[in-house]
Amino acid sequence: MGLIGLGRLGSVYAQNLARRIPETRLVAVADIAASVAKRIAEEHDVPRWYTDPLDLLADQQVDAVAIVTPTSTHRSLTIASLKRGKPTFCEKPPALSLDDAVAMRDAAAAASVPLHVGFMRRFDTGYAAAKRHVQGGTIGRVVVFKSSSRDPYPPSVEYANPASSGGLLVDMGIHDFDLAKWFMGPVASVHAVGGTLAYPELGAVGDIDNAVVSLQFDNGTLGVVDLSRNGVYGYDITTDLLGTSGTLRVGYLRETPLLRLTAEGVTHDTVPYFMQRFDTAYVAQLRDFAKAVLDARAPSVTIEDGIEALEICLAATASQKTGRPVALAEVSRAATSHPDARPSP
Amino acid sequence: MGLIGLGRLGSVYAQNLARRIPETRLVAVADIAASVAKRIAEEHDVPRWYTDPLDLLADQQVDAVAIVTPTSTHRSLTIASLKRGKPTFCEKPPALSLDDAVAMRDAAAAASVPLHVGFMRRFDTGYAAAKRHVQGGTIGRVVVFKSSSRDPYPPSVEYANPASSGGLLVDMGIHDFDLAKWFMGPVASVHAVGGTLAYPELGAVGDIDNAVVSLQFDNGTLGVVDLSRNGVYGYDITTDLLGTSGTLRVGYLRETPLLRLTAEGVTHDTVPYFMQRFDTAYVAQLRDFAKAVLDARAPSVTIEDGIEALEICLAATASQKTGRPVALAEVSRAATSHPDARPSP
Amino acid sequence: MGLIGLGRLGSVYAQNLARRIPETRLVAVADIAASVAKRIAEEHDVPRWYTDPLDLLADQQVDAVAIVTPTSTHRSLTIASLKRGKPTFCEKPPALSLDDAVAMRDAAAAASVPLHVGFMRRFDTGYAAAKRHVQGGTIGRVVVFKSSSRDPYPPSVEYANPASSGGLLVDMGIHDFDLAKWFMGPVASVHAVGGTLAYPELGAVGDIDNAVVSLQFDNGTLGVVDLSRNGVYGYDITTDLLGTSGTLRVGYLRETPLLRLTAEGVTHDTVPYFMQRFDTAYVAQLRDFAKAVLDARAPSVTIEDGIEALEICLAATASQKTGRPVALAEVSRAATSHPDARPSP
Amino acid sequence: MGLIGLGRLGSVYAQNLARRIPETRLVAVADIAASVAKRIAEEHDVPRWYTDPLDLLADQQVDAVAIVTPTSTHRSLTIASLKRGKPTFCEKPPALSLDDAVAMRDAAAAASVPLHVGFMRRFDTGYAAAKRHVQGGTIGRVVVFKSSSRDPYPPSVEYANPASSGGLLVDMGIHDFDLAKWFMGPVASVHAVGGTLAYPELGAVGDIDNAVVSLQFDNGTLGVVDLSRNGVYGYDITTDLLGTSGTLRVGYLRETPLLRLTAEGVTHDTVPYFMQRFDTAYVAQLRDFAKAVLDARAPSVTIEDGIEALEICLAATASQKTGRPVALAEVSRAATSHPDARPSP
Repeated sequence: MGLIGLGRLGSVYAQNLARRIPETRLVAVADIAASVAKRIAEEHDVPRWYTDPLDLLADQQVDAVAIVTPTSTHRSLTIASLKRGKPTFCEKPPALSLDDAVAMRDAAAAASVPLHVGFMRRFDTGYAAAKRHVQGGTIGRVVVFKSSSRDPYPPSVEYANPASSGGLLVDMGIHDFDLAKWFMGPVASVHAVGGTLAYPELGAVGDIDNAVVSLQFDNGTLGVVDLSRNGVYGYDITTDLLGTSGTLRVGYLRETPLLRLTAEGVTHDTVPYFMQRFDTAYVAQLRDFAKAVLDARAPSVTIEDGIEALEICLAATASQKTGRPVALAEVSRAATSHPDARPSP
Repeated sequence: MGLIGLGRLGSVYAQNLARRIPETRLVAVADIAASVAKRIAEEHDVPRWYTDPLDLLADQQVDAVAIVTPTSTHRSLTIASLKRGKPTFCEKPPALSLDDAVAMRDAAAAASVPLHVGFMRRFDTGYAAAKRHVQGGTIGRVVVFKSSSRDPYPPSVEYANPASSGGLLVDMGIHDFDLAKWFMGPVASVHAVGGTLAYPELGAVGDIDNAVVSLQFDNGTLGVVDLSRNGVYGYDITTDLLGTSGTLRVGYLRETPLLRLTAEGVTHDTVPYFMQRFDTAYVAQLRDFAKAVLDARAPSVTIEDGIEALEICLAATASQKTGRPVALAEVSRAATSHPDARPSP
Repeated sequence: MGLIGLGRLGSVYAQNLARRIPETRLVAVADIAASVAKRIAEEHDVPRWYTDPLDLLADQQVDAVAIVTPTSTHRSLTIASLKRGKPTFCEKPPALSLDDAVAMRDAAAAASVPLHVGFMRRFDTGYAAAKRHVQGGTIGRVVVFKSSSRDPYPPSVEYANPASSGGLLVDMGIHDFDLAKWFMGPVASVHAVGGTLAYPELGAVGDIDNAVVSLQFDNGTLGVVDLSRNGVYGYDITTDLLGTSGTLRVGYLRETPLLRLTAEGVTHDTVPYFMQRFDTAYVAQLRDFAKAVLDARAPSVTIEDGIEALEICLAATASQKTGRPVALAEVSRAATSHPDARPSP
Repeated sequence: MGLIGLGRLGSVYAQNLARRIPETRLVAVADIAASVAKRIAEEHDVPRWYTDPLDLLADQQVDAVAIVTPTSTHRSLTIASLKRGKPTFCEKPPALSLDDAVAMRDAAAAASVPLHVGFMRRFDTGYAAAKRHVQGGTIGRVVVFKSSSRDPYPPSVEYANPASSGGLLVDMGIHDFDLAKWFMGPVASVHAVGGTLAYPELGAVGDIDNAVVSLQFDNGTLGVVDLSRNGVYGYDITTDLLGTSGTLRVGYLRETPLLRLTAEGVTHDTVPYFMQRFDTAYVAQLRDFAKAVLDARAPSVTIEDGIEALEICLAATASQKTGRPVALAEVSRAATSHPDARPSP
């Protein structure tokens, strides 16, 4: 495989692809920073490294591509990769606009090449087990979906800028919204409230740092997602599925097997960040992508999944800005993009 | 003290007043069911029992009164008690309408007699400790309030009828809304979604069984409350206070000190219901009422607290019915009651 | 009932007997400190108080007696109570010597009056549930018994003196040894190691502050009890029953429903002491005693139970002093007391 | 590196050495089963495989060797490896007799080649953090060491045969005894009780399946280790370090982030076995070995550590068989091996 983008997450992907997935060999990496590309290549015995991702895409030894670059580049790189016939993995979010995401989908369809959008939580042992339990009927019908994501510290102001990140409801929310859809089915409408309550510097670039989003699903069931940048005690991701005969609760903060018992109480450390919490989920997802390619089956998570999750993000963003509930239909592809695809009057 | 109402909760109060609070002697009980009143009186060596609550209120030995009757009777009984100059404890909700609640407040003011509205959660060791930690700065500024209440099984259809219960958002929600206000300050607006998702029979009488309510506080902070009648695994009450430097989490399901470890996993029993979860909180609240009376200080929880919590309930109910966010100002006393109190045009 | 002894535990018993047990009325209390007896009597509306326990025993209104005095007085008070035909509850340990305990048993037999020895753990909801699960087969055959008791701080030097307390292995150990016997059956032999490792002042009066005792039961199964005076983080009582098809684990440290999540980790407070941990167990035990008397059935815990637990204590003490395993037969009544009760040659 | 032995644990080591440790390349594997060696080699792109370990030791490309074979072969393979000048990692236990272990130590000394004995628990994040906390004074002086190891199911009768496994107190106990020594210092004496209580078939080959071992350390502190083959609910490894100002508790059973909450209670799955519980510890240990070799520093765990842990195992075994406490001096090298090192008469 070839890997484009060697930032914080990309360098984790490099190690995973090079060392932890039996089905893959990492034969090329690309990053605009030559020193980074060279260092990562050496660290993992990767034969070739590039600064221009198009050079990597032209590499005949590269059978499949993983794209872990800033979101603004996803569309062009993904389409370029697909046009070269390379099965492509693109990290979330697929894009910040439905137009971009739809273009990626159309490119995959036109090329008949698999495109996997990264939602690693689905591959976490906890979430995967919850899915099996839901399907197996352990908790009856699921009627309320609750999910909470808290980062231990805020991103840089540059990263947080909604122009590049999409804002809190896209950047963080897309994970929870994908879970919502995965567990509950299509969303009918959302209502979001938010604010810049902990880190005023994020407000200065137009982002919020906390939000609460309530959801109504097509089937009448309910949901709520809350997001925060100030989970200063650790990386805290929890999901609660309330069913008619039980509840499933995914998430934990106790990473370490050590308890300290002193006059101050009983204390355990928490999970530092996503690299620890979802370490094996990232590996499992890339491995699933590789196996799907080798087995010539469709990817487990598709660009359609990415588009649908993005629609919820955009509806939530619109609701948070306007103060009113927003129906998914208002932001859907039919409503906002592809004017030429509309029925003629 | 005298106790009016000996139903499920009232009989707990009888035991608490008779046996668990050093400051009180239970000298009279009243219930419309003579057999119940007689039995409870005998069980706890209560000297006198009545079927007419007005007889109890006329009892010269009764120095203070606790009212644990159906909500529809709160207004008349409370006002009657206050008019006789008896310090009065009234179980939540004070009433189903602001008019009724305001009348109770006015009666207390007119008689200059203390009126305590029951919100036992404030007296739970966990919630009380959380309040102290918030005030002590343990978690910085609190920016998000989350609270979840789940009953282990649905009420009877008769009980659930919104005409008598006020509906889910009043009957269950008032506890969480009181906490919201207690921890965060005044609520500016709410948005609620809900549905009858588990127990269709509740829908037949006009109630819902699940709801998600998002809150915006006057100071810009956020909140969310979710309510469910189908917490079939136990009585699950949790509150999470997210601050700028930490989080406080109140609630637990592990009532019993026993773990069972078998090939099926590690299992513990849960808290059955409110009598177990808030057993000592009910005692502490009644004791606090008694001490306030003896010390001639104002009650810790007032009818004003009850009115404010009820306003949130009514706003949430209006939002759930209309589908749009509702500002508290829309349902407040100024807007809905006391036409004579409005400034003349 | 009448209550003799109003120290730390005795004052708890006063409240329980006066207020928390429907079957009992506390009509008399006795303590050598008149001011204490007077104060407790007033606090709980007890009609009569005495400084001489024999006066209480002579009180015609006293139908049954609870003795919560220093251990050295148990023998004489219990026998005096039994001789007056009063059903008697005696707090653990029944005595420090087998001679004394056997004399108490013989007095109960001679008078045909019930004598209950206090082992409150058996009435804890966790231990009681564990017993039911063992009997119900939840974990198959139990093959290893583990129990650990840790006090949050050391007793006074006066209290700890083995001449009055019996030493760590009697004073603390008797609870765990009673559980051992209750769950596993008779003990065949013990081996104990111990030391004065945290509080040298306890060593100065001849006591140890930590011990580990291994047990072999008559049926070949195994056990271990560890005891400590320096559980400085809280009152930590845990028991683990390892069976052939599962394990039961009794005990917890999380008394409070509050978690604090900060950059230092996730912290909860612990259980302060036995009054908190076994609050309801003490009530349940006294109530069981009262009901047994009213129902004319044998007490649930007998002086025979007390004698058997004491035998294990004494065997463990002998082992700790000599460094070698000690068979229960070496310390049993036949071996050490009552020469006149042996069959004549 | 070269790896000898590709059984259950050996195949895990193959993956770790091949893929998860940046400092190592796995260039050769050996197993008496050719099909296994060939398969593992192919799976991990290992260039060469052997059926005769001596061929691997003769391989010029092999710079260091890991030995994960049955214990009976450790002595000869380790000495052969050391004689060829290859830094050697030998899985625990180093040997079943002190003679064998001492011969290994002498060979390492004679060759001046590093020899690391595998005790992976020391590299677990929980145990490593506990060590740092002890050294940092978090809990004051440690006065009691408690450790418990439970396997989820028994080994095969062939494996369990003490002639090859050393018996329960060696095969399982050596891990806890190494921890005991690591945290507390030298052991003075032990007392062990044990029995074949769950799996009679183990008794038929002379092994026990449960044991309790109490320890006295040279410095007067205390310890207890309990071992079981019938932890049927999961792989349960816990250690409790009781200090004068707090306690450290290592261990957990909740591997999965999923809780199931139903009418049966709250349930989580447990840790299946050592490959899951100590997955990263095995990697960290091999990596530490590799780094020590590359950095030319002494191994973190030495054959001396292995010998000292084995001495405790043998003392415990002697105690369990004889029923009396056994001083370490009775089984130490001076007492049992090296006749030529004894003072002449």
